[in-house]
Amino acid sequence: MMKPAKYTKLVLLLTYALSLACPLHAQGAAAEAMAPDQLNLMPVPASVQTQTGRLPITGGFNVAVKNYADDRLRAGIARMLTRLAGRTVLTLPAGLATDEGSATLVVQCERAGDPIPSLNENESYSLEVTDQQARLVAPTVVGALRGLETFLQLLQGDRDGYYLPGVKIQDQPRFPWRGLLIDVGRHYEPMEVLKRNLDAMAAVKLNVFHWHLTEDQGFRVESKKFPKLHTLGSDGLFYTQDQVRDIIAYARDRGIRVMPEFDIPGHSTSWLVGYPELGSAPGPFKIERGAGIFEPALDPTREQTYKFLEGFLGDMAALFPDAYMHIGGDENEGKQWDRNPQIQAFMKEKGIKDNHALQAYFNQRVLKILQKHGKKMIGWEEILHPDLPKDAVIHSWRGPASLAEAAKKGYNGILSAGYYIDLIFPASQHYLADPIPQNTTLTTEESQHVLGGEATMWGEWVSAETIDSRIWPRTAAIAERLWSPRDVTDIDNMYRRLSVISRELEELGLTHEKNYGMLLRRLAATENTGPLRTLTSIIEPVKEYRRYQMRRQTMLSPLTGLVDAARPDSEAARQFVANVDAFLADAPRFALYRSNIDQTLVEWRTAGRALGPMIDRSPALQEARPLANNLSAIAEAALEAMSHLSAGDPATTEWRDAHLAKLDEAAKPKAALEFVVITSVRKLVIAAAELPQLRSITPAEWQKRITTMAAPSAAPAKP
Amino acid sequence: MMKPAKYTKLVLLLTYALSLACPLHAQGAAAEAMAPDQLNLMPVPASVQTQTGRLPITGGFNVAVKNYADDRLRAGIARMLTRLAGRTVLTLPAGLATDEGSATLVVQCERAGDPIPSLNENESYSLEVTDQQARLVAPTVVGALRGLETFLQLLQGDRDGYYLPGVKIQDQPRFPWRGLLIDVGRHYEPMEVLKRNLDAMAAVKLNVFHWHLTEDQGFRVESKKFPKLHTLGSDGLFYTQDQVRDIIAYARDRGIRVMPEFDIPGHSTSWLVGYPELGSAPGPFKIERGAGIFEPALDPTREQTYKFLEGFLGDMAALFPDAYMHIGGDENEGKQWDRNPQIQAFMKEKGIKDNHALQAYFNQRVLKILQKHGKKMIGWEEILHPDLPKDAVIHSWRGPASLAEAAKKGYNGILSAGYYIDLIFPASQHYLADPIPQNTTLTTEESQHVLGGEATMWGEWVSAETIDSRIWPRTAAIAERLWSPRDVTDIDNMYRRLSVISRELEELGLTHEKNYGMLLRRLAATENTGPLRTLTSIIEPVKEYRRYQMRRQTMLSPLTGLVDAARPDSEAARQFVANVDAFLADAPRFALYRSNIDQTLVEWRTAGRALGPMIDRSPALQEARPLANNLSAIAEAALEAMSHLSAGDPATTEWRDAHLAKLDEAAKPKAALEFVVITSVRKLVIAAAELPQLRSITPAEWQKRITTMAAPSAAPAKP
Repeated sequence: MMKPAKYTKLVLLLTYALSLACPLHAQGAAAEAMAPDQLNLMPVPASVQTQTGRLPITGGFNVAVKNYADDRLRAGIARMLTRLAGRTVLTLPAGLATDEGSATLVVQCERAGDPIPSLNENESYSLEVTDQQARLVAPTVVGALRGLETFLQLLQGDRDGYYLPGVKIQDQPRFPWRGLLIDVGRHYEPMEVLKRNLDAMAAVKLNVFHWHLTEDQGFRVESKKFPKLHTLGSDGLFYTQDQVRDIIAYARDRGIRVMPEFDIPGHSTSWLVGYPELGSAPGPFKIERGAGIFEPALDPTREQTYKFLEGFLGDMAALFPDAYMHIGGDENEGKQWDRNPQIQAFMKEKGIKDNHALQAYFNQRVLKILQKHGKKMIGWEEILHPDLPKDAVIHSWRGPASLAEAAKKGYNGILSAGYYIDLIFPASQHYLADPIPQNTTLTTEESQHVLGGEATMWGEWVSAETIDSRIWPRTAAIAERLWSPRDVTDIDNMYRRLSVISRELEELGLTHEKNYGMLLRRLAATENTGPLRTLTSIIEPVKEYRRYQMRRQTMLSPLTGLVDAARPDSEAARQFVANVDAFLADAPRFALYRSNIDQTLVEWRTAGRALGPMIDRSPALQEARPLANNLSAIAEAALEAMSHLSAGDPATTEWRDAHLAKLDEAAKPKAALEFVVITSVRKLVIAAAELPQLRSITPAEWQKRITTMAAPSAAPAKP
Repeated sequence: MMKPAKYTKLVLLLTYALSLACPLHAQGAAAEAMAPDQLNLMPVPASVQTQTGRLPITGGFNVAVKNYADDRLRAGIARMLTRLAGRTVLTLPAGLATDEGSATLVVQCERAGDPIPSLNENESYSLEVTDQQARLVAPTVVGALRGLETFLQLLQGDRDGYYLPGVKIQDQPRFPWRGLLIDVGRHYEPMEVLKRNLDAMAAVKLNVFHWHLTEDQGFRVESKKFPKLHTLGSDGLFYTQDQVRDIIAYARDRGIRVMPEFDIPGHSTSWLVGYPELGSAPGPFKIERGAGIFEPALDPTREQTYKFLEGFLGDMAALFPDAYMHIGGDENEGKQWDRNPQIQAFMKEKGIKDNHALQAYFNQRVLKILQKHGKKMIGWEEILHPDLPKDAVIHSWRGPASLAEAAKKGYNGILSAGYYIDLIFPASQHYLADPIPQNTTLTTEESQHVLGGEATMWGEWVSAETIDSRIWPRTAAIAERLWSPRDVTDIDNMYRRLSVISRELEELGLTHEKNYGMLLRRLAATENTGPLRTLTSIIEPVKEYRRYQMRRQTMLSPLTGLVDAARPDSEAARQFVANVDAFLADAPRFALYRSNIDQTLVEWRTAGRALGPMIDRSPALQEARPLANNLSAIAEAALEAMSHLSAGDPATTEWRDAHLAKLDEAAKPKAALEFVVITSVRKLVIAAAELPQLRSITPAEWQKRITTMAAPSAAPAKP
């Protein structure tokens, strides 16, 4: 029971959005309450009000449940307690409290919710923390689980101990479909990788695990009916049906749907290794080892194909309880269809005018199979075709516009364009991709067709050792986009919270942080990786699909190179870029962050020198030698520029051009890696030569100049 | 086929032992061959000869098998290839080479070996590496697996690429029983923890996984016959019989026996939760949460007990194929027996004079059950009793002397005294514990009864996050003791190789290194753990059983405190101690390592200052505050002493005594942690005050003085 007296302690009632609009007000209004945007919540709840008071977390912390409780809720509370204990190093009482009045946290839940996690699950909850008690109220167990994650994220500590700040939260997701696709086809991922990623998904309130189970490079699920699928198509690396059930149960415990994908008719080489008769070309077929788009496709013209799919998909429909089944449907170029006379004859006979229409025919046949087994079909947007029934769901890799187009036609859809985390873009970029952008042309009613989105972890270049670092922490930013109000878009605040969440994810066994050092130790063959770590902190793997172009590996290649150790979204680079901008804006003093920048640059120079001998000892690092040389050149250019700027001593244009040339060289990717600080160093070098002009322009003009001076197209100012 | 021509390239034929005896000779004899003790082999093989030449390891590396090959061998080769590729970042050809002549490595094996790994398995192998080819010859697949580990450990790299140095190795173990006990009773360990530790065991050629499955605090194996054992005795944390079979198969694949232990009649509280009728006191019983020795024990006087054990152990005998079954038998104080009138009456009736005799009676009954199921019995040395049959094996926790005593009586035995890795002693100490020490009184024949030894990872204070750091890398030193010739005892060389092996173990997923940083990040609630890492690098958990005395936790407490992050056998401290000794021995110059020591001390001082604010922010670190203050005091004392010594300016005795008092205070353990550099800092402080005496004594006297000056009993020299 909430004691009415506590309500009198509410002194600050500001929503999160308001606090973003006027942060100073939020911080200044009440000395004792935290501003909502100072909290470490991710995703940001729909509504947050802070209030004075704090709830101390001590060894006496306990939880009571009220109204409804079941095994899933109790297990969720137990997991929360383990994490709370781990973080605070407090021995907490085992089991639940019997007395609601004296419990630290009361979880009041009304019902189990859907027996199988569904798109319609009510995930809402409210959470109030006063200095007496925390109270989590949710209509369903899943809502309570979401609230328990928020509860844990509220934990703070200071000299007086651990506590939760006074807060009043009302929360529910913006979109009902918030997914993470993991492609286990190209590289198999062990069970514990999937489980820890399910834990991480739950921590940021994602609710769909899209299990991309089949690819040209691997067929990863046991088929009782057609065992040659997994025995011949997987190198022995597949999930047994028991393991699948284990994952489904594990996900369900966390309020997460498990939607399987069986990608057809293309991306199907691994199917054809065991069953070449399903193919559109004679075979035999071997498991694909390369990356890219391949020709093998199921033959959509033979009844045998559908009989097979009826058997296989029926089996899978029984195994996977989710209402949806993903049939892929992407990237089938139909080259084998073009060359197959029987397929051509079939098309002619049926009046099927092109391969797109033939695939539509195939999809409709598959749709009927799925319908028969009570499943709704979802596929990549290639499946969109005038004949596609309206209960199919469109999965968009093209973007919100094409998603809106489908919505206007009445199709439900989810967005993955903008969420391709395998392409190594920064979190900030994913964060701003919105399934229904501000400028949407959709009516409110049409908008209902946009169900949400999914981050896609395509598996070409990830191993069990590196996959976490490709998914996390960036996917937490996507999770926030899909859960939080559309106007929550402050990038700096997002990054501040992302760094906290990233550490908290480690409690769940995620390896995105700890495997970084491990991979560097292996590469350098020493514990003393300092210089290598310095280099790697400001380089990132090349973006989009350039890695494969620059470094031709196969699916059997080790993913233990420097490009695998290096991570997306360098925090060190982001810090450097911000510091340099602030330093340059501080003209003509050039004092702000000066010593910080100088210290960083000296560290780069020292590392550049130390890397040579390290590379000599480790042939696996040979490919990093040009990067090490670049690092020295970058450090030298920047240090000299800093001297010029600090001393007010203009550099010559010759000096500038010589260094810019070296920076152009350094900017070229090597070993599929690229520096992400070059633009800032270019700014320093250009500014050093522009000191004379600085005296004759306004601060505003200089500010504008800083922003544009290092752009590739910017001409150096005339002396 | 080995081409005879290659034998002409053998220019250096020195055994490892010889090289240790005259290292200069070994290094000087042939410019091109490495000295055997420069190799990173652990355990050191029985015989190593280095030779000139090197075998390049390139992307063309491949393996051919000869004579005998089976799935186990092929899987072992595949695992080796994956690790080789991971370390070199080379894409290696998949599968085996068909042409033996052109293969880089030829594995010639004669037979499968024992179908179930056994004590009699032939684990020998020979390995020759020339600049043309490597050839591994082994009578059994297990021998070949051992040789493949050696092969991987030989990998070296330089500017010219990866290679194996020319070498000729003949190897077999000194003892046939080389084990690691993992206690999963007190804390359950997930499957992946066991699997990665089995991988690590194989890497250092250990061959017995002693699975301590039952304890007062947990019953961890599924019993089909008596399900209340695991359902009520485990908090739901147990291994299903399928999982047990999975572990056994995984271990067998690596040539490792799996010996289960069911600890009876004591240590059995968890049995009695579900079956109180087996107990010697009325019950009811609850799973024990504390650490220590507890009273509950099976009732040895009732036939029902043996009927139960017949059922349970018979079931387990069918599940575990190993020839041995461990029945524990330790630490039963018999207090419940003393208080039970029926038991007392039974003893009187049967003429059983004391509890030891009663336990012997119990053991004989259990032995008969085991014999019936074809198992040999092994138990802790408490089971030794005049009536014990000679085919029982004695597991000694007392030491080699009592093992020798048992051997003289004709009992086989294994040693664990000296190998209690839970007690946080340094590897050097375990390394010198020998099952058959140099001064043994055993005849050669009697020595045959000493089968080997086992490292014991008792589970009171280890979680899945920390257990690896308690086992590794120190257990590799024990593995060497049990495999390598007795005269391989060079501690410095052991530590040099241990650090290499430690890194290589990370390739297998071991977390002993990477979880260190993770735990510090969690404690400090920041990525920037620098000062905390500096502190933690020179403190160790208290030794023996003092942790529990200083920090009363239960089995339900989180193992995430600073004492859990801190590791045994501090490398930083070892380095500091060595540097200080060298610095002091360099009197009166005091130049050797001076700047290195100064730099370290400044880092300590800086960390000491920075820790305060860090601790303020993280209540979990509160207990580290006195350690942080001590760190500052230690750094200050040492820096001042360094100034005195460097300047040749004697310190006063008042100064000395004031700092020694502070060091005495710093030497007291706090938060179950203790500094391991105090003795060296004491030396610096005392030496600073002894500069005047230094002028009047010989270098030899000074050297002796350094060794003893900081001993607790050493009186300061009179001024």
